[in-house]
Amino acid sequence: MEPKKPDRRDFIKHSTALALAGWTFSATDQVYTRNPTQDNDLFIIGPKSGFSPQVGTLVSMMNWTRKITTSTVAELSMKDLDFLIDPTANTIGALLRHTIAQEKECQIQTFAWDRAEVINETDLVAGSLGNDARQHIQGNEIEFYLEKLRSVRETSIGELKNRDDAWLMEIGHHHPWGIPVNNYCQWFHVLEHECQHVGQIALIKNRLLAPRNDWIHSLG
Amino acid sequence: MEPKKPDRRDFIKHSTALALAGWTFSATDQVYTRNPTQDNDLFIIGPKSGFSPQVGTLVSMMNWTRKITTSTVAELSMKDLDFLIDPTANTIGALLRHTIAQEKECQIQTFAWDRAEVINETDLVAGSLGNDARQHIQGNEIEFYLEKLRSVRETSIGELKNRDDAWLMEIGHHHPWGIPVNNYCQWFHVLEHECQHVGQIALIKNRLLAPRNDWIHSLG
Repeated sequence: MEPKKPDRRDFIKHSTALALAGWTFSATDQVYTRNPTQDNDLFIIGPKSGFSPQVGTLVSMMNWTRKITTSTVAELSMKDLDFLIDPTANTIGALLRHTIAQEKECQIQTFAWDRAEVINETDLVAGSLGNDARQHIQGNEIEFYLEKLRSVRETSIGELKNRDDAWLMEIGHHHPWGIPVNNYCQWFHVLEHECQHVGQIALIKNRLLAPRNDWIHSLG
Repeated sequence: MEPKKPDRRDFIKHSTALALAGWTFSATDQVYTRNPTQDNDLFIIGPKSGFSPQVGTLVSMMNWTRKITTSTVAELSMKDLDFLIDPTANTIGALLRHTIAQEKECQIQTFAWDRAEVINETDLVAGSLGNDARQHIQGNEIEFYLEKLRSVRETSIGELKNRDDAWLMEIGHHHPWGIPVNNYCQWFHVLEHECQHVGQIALIKNRLLAPRNDWIHSLG
């Protein structure tokens, strides 16, 4: 089916709505600035006050993603966080701790920090997930994970405030996948990886809420 | 643990690696341009030739995400695509068809297209997932889904080539969540939503590969 192709002029009228959110644009498309009072709204992806434009845009995506994560898990009990859908599964708790470890790894890679000074034993276990994580990451209330998520993010944000857009595009010394990767890609990977695990957390959470004794496994 | 705080000068040396990827920067951090021959590498998130800078950056994220999706499912059989981990689950096939429907919804919202001209019955079923999707989205080989993913993305990319950065920041007439949402946020939502479902697909795929009769459900 061929969709209707609206005239480009159709879109010009939309821009009047921008005043609502305090956005202003320069004469070129490449540079935009923002009313610095508008820095808390999640539904605007773009530059944020206190950050260079591209870094702020990344931060707005990180904020959106983290909000989804925390709102998905906020009401879960310790029992929920330790629930396994089967013996080879990851618990929601382990996935949250994994998300924290992944962010620390990205800090190390992109801020060129000494890995031994940042990563602890639990980060290593959480980073690999699997059996060790099933055994060792349990017995924590949600506040434990939320506080660690908050703390690691606070560190990231504090550092990103001091970086500029040229840094975001840099390809660092560390190429974790053996090929040139820029800092923007490493941070984008952190957030898309978090999104993948949030999807899994939502799936596991749905199984917590469903009557488990009704489950039947079939090839559909 | 307090990480080492490297001196900002530590980062300057990193920029020499930029020549590897053909990047050049202007005198300001806000404007960067790119060697237009470098438009196929997935591991650089940033402007792409043929797009305005911010739109190209979004497209580089959309490409990364879609590559993860297609590489996760490329080898699956029809039986795999129709597998249910339990009676209330979604199949991988339904999640792929849902991803296609979601991208069409975002086209409608951000390109201001007529919904009735773009969305068909299967899009509605796939958009809602659940029981109707379990019943009606099955019996397709992977090529069916890959071709639809390719086709909807081709349409998106063709349209995004004709949009500029000011458009990306616009808050359109359509506020799908009842609040001001800019076009960048709507497209970012499409890709983070795709990432969530890819995480679920990976979880389901792992259950396809595991010996299913060993499954035990416990509260961990």
